[in-house]
Amino acid sequence: MRDYNEYLQIVKDAISNLRLPAQPSGLYDPIRYALNCGGKRLRPVLTLAACEAMGKDPKSAIHQAIAIEMFHNFTLLHDDVMDKADVRRGRPTVHVKWNEETAILSGDAMLTTAGMLLAVKCGDHLPQALELFNGTAMNIYEGQQYDMDFEKRTDVTVDEYMEMIRLKTSVLLGCSCGMGALMADAPFETQVRFFDYGVNLGLAFQLQDDYLDTYGNPETFGKAIGGDILNDKKTWLLIMAMNEDKSGKIRSLLGPATDPDEKIKAVRSIYDELDLPQRAHELISAYIDTAIKCLDHMELSPEARSFFMDIALKSATRDK
Amino acid sequence: MRDYNEYLQIVKDAISNLRLPAQPSGLYDPIRYALNCGGKRLRPVLTLAACEAMGKDPKSAIHQAIAIEMFHNFTLLHDDVMDKADVRRGRPTVHVKWNEETAILSGDAMLTTAGMLLAVKCGDHLPQALELFNGTAMNIYEGQQYDMDFEKRTDVTVDEYMEMIRLKTSVLLGCSCGMGALMADAPFETQVRFFDYGVNLGLAFQLQDDYLDTYGNPETFGKAIGGDILNDKKTWLLIMAMNEDKSGKIRSLLGPATDPDEKIKAVRSIYDELDLPQRAHELISAYIDTAIKCLDHMELSPEARSFFMDIALKSATRDK
Repeated sequence: MRDYNEYLQIVKDAISNLRLPAQPSGLYDPIRYALNCGGKRLRPVLTLAACEAMGKDPKSAIHQAIAIEMFHNFTLLHDDVMDKADVRRGRPTVHVKWNEETAILSGDAMLTTAGMLLAVKCGDHLPQALELFNGTAMNIYEGQQYDMDFEKRTDVTVDEYMEMIRLKTSVLLGCSCGMGALMADAPFETQVRFFDYGVNLGLAFQLQDDYLDTYGNPETFGKAIGGDILNDKKTWLLIMAMNEDKSGKIRSLLGPATDPDEKIKAVRSIYDELDLPQRAHELISAYIDTAIKCLDHMELSPEARSFFMDIALKSATRDK
Repeated sequence: MRDYNEYLQIVKDAISNLRLPAQPSGLYDPIRYALNCGGKRLRPVLTLAACEAMGKDPKSAIHQAIAIEMFHNFTLLHDDVMDKADVRRGRPTVHVKWNEETAILSGDAMLTTAGMLLAVKCGDHLPQALELFNGTAMNIYEGQQYDMDFEKRTDVTVDEYMEMIRLKTSVLLGCSCGMGALMADAPFETQVRFFDYGVNLGLAFQLQDDYLDTYGNPETFGKAIGGDILNDKKTWLLIMAMNEDKSGKIRSLLGPATDPDEKIKAVRSIYDELDLPQRAHELISAYIDTAIKCLDHMELSPEARSFFMDIALKSATRDK
């Protein structure tokens, strides 16, 4: 096994070696822009690492890894149009820098390009790789739809929320790991374990995201704290509070705030009363434990086990 | 060979037998709506007919045929968002009936679903089918981008226009025919001939569309005549006129019209002076001739040859 940054370098090299056509530039420039967003490249790194953990050269899964990263950036691009988000990772989003038509069309082209990359040097794995990839994509659209549906509802249950984030964000981490194992000819059962590891990692990851948006340190988190509260975003914290706060206080705080800081403080104090920060940590730990148990059920070298365990533990304690 | 309506019935049955999930309905209802738009289903019919013409049961290409129809309806859905079109085939478009986010997300799901359908019972043809399908999709996005670029330019050449419609609309007819031949194990050269037949058919088809929008019979055409003129749409007619009308008259007529009927009449009279209706007919006939020549270079049964010749000749003389 290599370390994270070595896999990351392989991913970066492959992305910069992608030869997208020059023309029409109105189609391909936004793709280059969306793809060169920096970031941890967690998904393709997981693919390469899972492939190597199963005994194959990680580069034998490089096209599939880049396909998943391309797909991931496509979902961000279209999500930003749907959410009317103006900024991503400190840069204007594609529909702001260009326009909405460009964002839609370039996103479509990224989705098709991801499908093309997936098939490159895929060999006999192609039918199964496509099934995993396309099935994951459908799950993600379903998750995004539920997320939009939930914005209009006030009776979302925690189970519904967990299923939504499983679909919207976690299965892609599962797919990333499973794809690497598949490309390494790992037995089907091992592919499934790797997939489950990724899904549980993803659930922990998203819950930690929710937690940091309300309880993070503004200096390390990189964006303003309390955005979810101000937007009444149906996170795990808000849904738990809406289900458990019988006084009706939390519902009375929803809606536009006259004093944003006051609203953040008031909502956070209800969360605190319900002991939600601590309970969030316990839930995150439980998903991390489940992820690590998946590793225990595979035949991994000590180095491979520690690589994936490290990622899981860090995702539960990260502060940005 | 069967007749058109028999292939059409196979397509209709397959579409109504598609089992899309019920939930989330916000994602899948718009897909059902977009797919049940009626229409001639020319593309999947071409796939089935090409497959049978090459000696195989047309149903062995049914999933690939439906994949192409799904893809086609996806492009219409997203094009309508980009063009802000409110009506398609007499019904409100998806972004009007639902909203724009729904139209984007459901379109994405249609594109992925098309990819899934393509792989069903595709056997050893999968890599080549994907290459044909994905390559065609990229061409279509490029064509759509050029189409949007042309709206802002006044110096578009006829060659550029022909390349744009080849990409945006014709290659999908080529892909439809080539896919049927591929699924029937036809030799690669035959697949290419079938592809070329479809592309030339598509070019004739689009030019006839342009012609009918200005010179069609309002009673048979089904929508108002002159829409392209009122929108200054860069059709073959307008581009030819802009290139050949040295008086500058045509350019002075562009822009918002105080009297729409007057603008249509004035533009049409310039087209008439330049003999463009007649020259459009000649160009359409030339593409039809080329399409038919492609048929002559294949080993087709007399019935198969007449089926595809019939489609070509009808597309050049259709009035709606």
